[in-house]
Amino acid sequence: MFEKEYDVIVVGGGHAGAEATAAAANMGSSTLLVTMNLQTIGQMSCNPAMGGIAKGQIVREIDALGGYSGIITDKSAIQFKMLNKSKGPAMWSPRAQNDRMRFAEEWRMALENTPNADFYQEMVTGLLVEKDKVVGVRTSLGIEIRSKAVVLTNGTFLNGLIHIGEKQFGGGRAGEKAATGITEQLVELGFDSGRMKTGTPPRVDGRSLDYDKMIPQPGDDRPEKFSYLNTPVLKVQRDCHMTHTSALVHDLLREGFDRSPMFNGRIQSIGPRYCPSIEDKINRFADKDAHQIFVEPEGWNTVEVYVNGFSTSLPEDVQYKALKSVKGFERVKFFRPGYAIEYDYFPPTQLKHTLETKLVNNLYFAGQINGTTGYEEAASQGLMAGINAHLKINEKEPFVLKRDEAYIGVLVDDLITKGTEEPYRMFTSRAEYRTLLRQDNADLRLTPKGYEIGLAKEERLIRMEEKQEKSRHFVDFFKKTSFDPEEMNPILESVDSASVRQSDKLFKVFSRPKVTMDHMLQLESVSGFVKEHDLDTEVMEQAEIEVKYSGYIEKEKNNADKLHRLENVRIPDNFDYAKLKSLSFEAREKLESIRPVTISQASRISGVSPADISVLLVYLGR
Amino acid sequence: MFEKEYDVIVVGGGHAGAEATAAAANMGSSTLLVTMNLQTIGQMSCNPAMGGIAKGQIVREIDALGGYSGIITDKSAIQFKMLNKSKGPAMWSPRAQNDRMRFAEEWRMALENTPNADFYQEMVTGLLVEKDKVVGVRTSLGIEIRSKAVVLTNGTFLNGLIHIGEKQFGGGRAGEKAATGITEQLVELGFDSGRMKTGTPPRVDGRSLDYDKMIPQPGDDRPEKFSYLNTPVLKVQRDCHMTHTSALVHDLLREGFDRSPMFNGRIQSIGPRYCPSIEDKINRFADKDAHQIFVEPEGWNTVEVYVNGFSTSLPEDVQYKALKSVKGFERVKFFRPGYAIEYDYFPPTQLKHTLETKLVNNLYFAGQINGTTGYEEAASQGLMAGINAHLKINEKEPFVLKRDEAYIGVLVDDLITKGTEEPYRMFTSRAEYRTLLRQDNADLRLTPKGYEIGLAKEERLIRMEEKQEKSRHFVDFFKKTSFDPEEMNPILESVDSASVRQSDKLFKVFSRPKVTMDHMLQLESVSGFVKEHDLDTEVMEQAEIEVKYSGYIEKEKNNADKLHRLENVRIPDNFDYAKLKSLSFEAREKLESIRPVTISQASRISGVSPADISVLLVYLGR
Ligand SMILES: Cc1cc2nc3c(=O)[nH]c(=O)nc-3n(C[C@H](O)[C@H](O)[C@H](O)COP(=O)(O)OP(=O)(O)OC[C@H]3O[C@@H](n4cnc5c(N)ncnc54)[C@H](O)[C@@H]3O)c2cc1C
Ligand SMILES: Cc1cc2nc3c(=O)[nH]c(=O)nc-3n(C[C@H](O)[C@H](O)[C@H](O)COP(=O)(O)OP(=O)(O)OC[C@H]3O[C@@H](n4cnc5c(N)ncnc54)[C@H](O)[C@@H]3O)c2cc1C
Repeated sequence: MFEKEYDVIVVGGGHAGAEATAAAANMGSSTLLVTMNLQTIGQMSCNPAMGGIAKGQIVREIDALGGYSGIITDKSAIQFKMLNKSKGPAMWSPRAQNDRMRFAEEWRMALENTPNADFYQEMVTGLLVEKDKVVGVRTSLGIEIRSKAVVLTNGTFLNGLIHIGEKQFGGGRAGEKAATGITEQLVELGFDSGRMKTGTPPRVDGRSLDYDKMIPQPGDDRPEKFSYLNTPVLKVQRDCHMTHTSALVHDLLREGFDRSPMFNGRIQSIGPRYCPSIEDKINRFADKDAHQIFVEPEGWNTVEVYVNGFSTSLPEDVQYKALKSVKGFERVKFFRPGYAIEYDYFPPTQLKHTLETKLVNNLYFAGQINGTTGYEEAASQGLMAGINAHLKINEKEPFVLKRDEAYIGVLVDDLITKGTEEPYRMFTSRAEYRTLLRQDNADLRLTPKGYEIGLAKEERLIRMEEKQEKSRHFVDFFKKTSFDPEEMNPILESVDSASVRQSDKLFKVFSRPKVTMDHMLQLESVSGFVKEHDLDTEVMEQAEIEVKYSGYIEKEKNNADKLHRLENVRIPDNFDYAKLKSLSFEAREKLESIRPVTISQASRISGVSPADISVLLVYLGR
Repeated sequence: MFEKEYDVIVVGGGHAGAEATAAAANMGSSTLLVTMNLQTIGQMSCNPAMGGIAKGQIVREIDALGGYSGIITDKSAIQFKMLNKSKGPAMWSPRAQNDRMRFAEEWRMALENTPNADFYQEMVTGLLVEKDKVVGVRTSLGIEIRSKAVVLTNGTFLNGLIHIGEKQFGGGRAGEKAATGITEQLVELGFDSGRMKTGTPPRVDGRSLDYDKMIPQPGDDRPEKFSYLNTPVLKVQRDCHMTHTSALVHDLLREGFDRSPMFNGRIQSIGPRYCPSIEDKINRFADKDAHQIFVEPEGWNTVEVYVNGFSTSLPEDVQYKALKSVKGFERVKFFRPGYAIEYDYFPPTQLKHTLETKLVNNLYFAGQINGTTGYEEAASQGLMAGINAHLKINEKEPFVLKRDEAYIGVLVDDLITKGTEEPYRMFTSRAEYRTLLRQDNADLRLTPKGYEIGLAKEERLIRMEEKQEKSRHFVDFFKKTSFDPEEMNPILESVDSASVRQSDKLFKVFSRPKVTMDHMLQLESVSGFVKEHDLDTEVMEQAEIEVKYSGYIEKEKNNADKLHRLENVRIPDNFDYAKLKSLSFEAREKLESIRPVTISQASRISGVSPADISVLLVYLGR
């Protein structure tokens, strides 16, 4: 049925598989996406949202390189927020709520419109391997499809086992079959495999909720977007809502702990520390009386609602009783209970920086199969695997991003050098150079690279160069142009900033913490420049960050260098980590159990962040 | 988790389940739809089209009663055709191509907007039965949900087994799990169950087809629609295309017959005679060299294409080789192969006219579970079951349609009195009174009834009464108004109809076969009347049929009466049916095997049509 040899076969149409398919096909590889159900391409398994802290930066990076996740997100968004806007720009993180159905449909349509991308619906049950090299896949029907490279992106489907209370079912996601065969074959080929778990909250009927008792969470007044291309900006948005658990809710949940697969030993595998189940939160933070719950609509029109923060695998009657006691949920009706899922993953230390496996040539792993969690993490790995599969079979140099070039670089480097014992998600704290890896400059950092390897189109490069050019020009303007104190002082007064006596360069006042672009725009010279040069928000944001944070960015670079120099410092035996209150909880746990000998070793432990290392260094007198 | 007792629980969210939910909820019953996957509500398992011969009439009837299928079809249509427009109006059958994703989404949205309708995603594995009465369902999690009535609409999912060549998988549809537990429990309760099968063709990549080699099949120039309400009329349409199999294609298919589950005995169950697989067609009509294939787009934008007419469960390599030899398919790429599915059904003779089971009170069966095939057949049963479940628990009179009132009446009566040994689909020939059961007058026949039971809203009744009033008025106008021969004769000449010497009533010429409403509208008096009274297409169509076919309709009524009187005629032993060439193929097969003793008995055999009975009567000298 498949006569020709494909260049690349991608197994699985989740976020990793969809990006891998798009990347390989757009670079010119004839690519076949084989997935179990063509109607679930780009399906969001868990919450209907993209981005967030550090994750939003990743989506921007994917977009800058020429991937699709940003475009799809913009086209299907129902709400947009720039998180952490009150902090420094390294922390600004775009996040969108999405219409779940639209998101999947946009992915499907985007891939259908990608030349070189073919589709086939079936379960892959094995790989064709000849002389340490993958040469194709075998499906459940026994069809052999040959290719020069294969990207595996099986997500949570490999021997997936769903848990709700004491009950278990095979499945890759609620209502979907698990995938079998692949793990067994890979283990036979010499791969290590492990087991992880993740969970999801109940879905409920929005018509049964009392929103008046909750706190509305509207989107930004001036919503931005993810893609550096010309995607639409939201004109209307849907609100989310916030409510809280309570001591009563926690007590009700605790009643089910003896029937919880997490606590009665039925689930052994490790779940995501940072998307813990509600029972986990209650257990680990026993002194906290209330946890936030975000009530998120699943789309523009549907009444289905996602109960963010209430992930659980407790028995469904316990879920129900407890959720009913949450403010606003008194009359709640379930669409389906929350559940946990256990699945196979392959410790990613078995991969090269290209995401190719060390054991089998031309075989790439991307996404949750590598022990990560999250759409963005999955999508970015898919992109990198798709790119590198294409480059390898065309005998070109591999494409690897460094830790100071992209979160994607940090992600891949963390995975393959440190591995991960629990579902890995991205944080700004994992990045040593996070002031460089901002959401505003992903295009400046990456689009030239994406263009060079033949993925980002010329249009992207031109847009990015224009933005760069214009913002440089604008910064120069601030450096060269002087203000008139009489015009400036009322503005400074309005933000409680010391007034100026005499004229000086604009750059000087603009560098003050409380002065923003909005203030500068009140000056005729500035607003005139903006009008004359037709500067858009992106250019202005770029220029603002360059003016206001240049010193900060320089300082961070120096810090990073210092860290490099100091990282061989020894840690005394029997060092008492409990003393160091400012270590993160996770770092303390890990350090106590692994007991690294040097700071360098400590820094490579997954979950020990640069901030933790700084704490150690300070304590050790460095 | 479910505290209250529901009035009605509907199991399954296919076409039957969706209509049942809508009907019960709209009539005022608190209704819970429990289905395995809330993302596949209203999923079209097979071809992306609604209506067609006799089926289109059913959709109009569902709409007239206040069901949703017509509205959903109109909202998601991509092409509309009135089939058989060249024949008498009893044969006119509306048919729409649909956007598969939109169709399902519109269903979901329609149900979400139905007050009293709740949703829950899980597999139902058993019924709660107390003292011969159903009192709820039990889910795979062991949750018991109580209700006053239950409607089962499991479709092809009960112990579903998918076949492709010699391979078999459990499944309710490609990529979806089968449902278990229910059959076993029902058999234990004393129900008979049987096994049927159906099949579906491959889905292919439209980008790989050569449409230039096929014959375009555009929609109607003036597309109509299904709903009697104010749904949108298509402004743009998508073309289908036609191509043909060939002797070569048939030979290639035959090569796989020894590996076909149909021919090597692996599938024992009986498939739909009227949607046969391509291998069936080749086998049964060995002398035919070519069969039509309709190439149908799956939606507005998707490249996925449905290969109507090529349903098959041959091994996938055989499917591929053969389809590649079809004109226009030389470069075809498969999205997925065709397959057959076997599933449990319950012979519908175990039901009352209300679709309630005889064995268990307040338990209703609707859809494919009753041995029918087709979305329309399923939807109409769902509607009737939902209505009757509501009426019963409110101690109201049952709602049963007679054979001369609706195709739905014929369908239900056929099922419960004759049963069916093969998947039952509707045909105009199954209806003795088909001249009465037209697509144009379903509202006149049924909306008053739908309104009376509290399902059809007042808006529907008012629209129907207006239409009736206006068309009566218009018919009266034709009866009373005379024409001017000078104005009339050029029109008559243009259609080769004898000219008139002197003035007469309009009715007289309009009754002539070749004269249509379009011709009448060329008369100033007629077009003036239309303008003055603001008559729309529906009213004009209604009036036209009443003028032109009133005699015919009367005659058919008499024929039907005659049939009634004569139906006790005996058939001689050893009667040689082979002699009667004008018997349908199916009728001959059935009569030869069952050998009925009387015409009356013959007429009750499924597949022996009124036309066949007429043939027999003529031969027997009556
Ligand atoms: C219940 C649940 C809860 C989650 N909770 C969170 C959370 O709280 N926070 C968070 O960040 N992330 C969470 N996630 C994870 C997030 O959904 C994933 O990280 C992300 O979807 C992974 O993307 P992926 O592309 O690697 O795999 P997936 O999105 O899982 O996609 C895998 C794809 O591969 C296909 N496939 C699998 N095996 C085969 C095969 N053998 N042949 C053909 N096709 C195959 C599947 O059909 C599917 O299309 C959760 C996931 C689940 C299921
Ligand atoms: C492969 C295939 C080919 C077909 N070919 C044709 C054809 O050629 N011509 C034709 O006219 N018709 C064909 N059909 C039939 C047509 O699709 C059905 O007649 C129609 O969909 C039946 O509607 P339904 O509502 O009875 O069931 P379905 O549409 O099958 O829906 C059943 C629903 O019930 C749910 N469900 C089942 N069991 C449970 C449970 N235990 N608990 C909870 N939910 C449950 C399922 O998830 C599904 O939503 C075909 C169907 C299939 C699958």
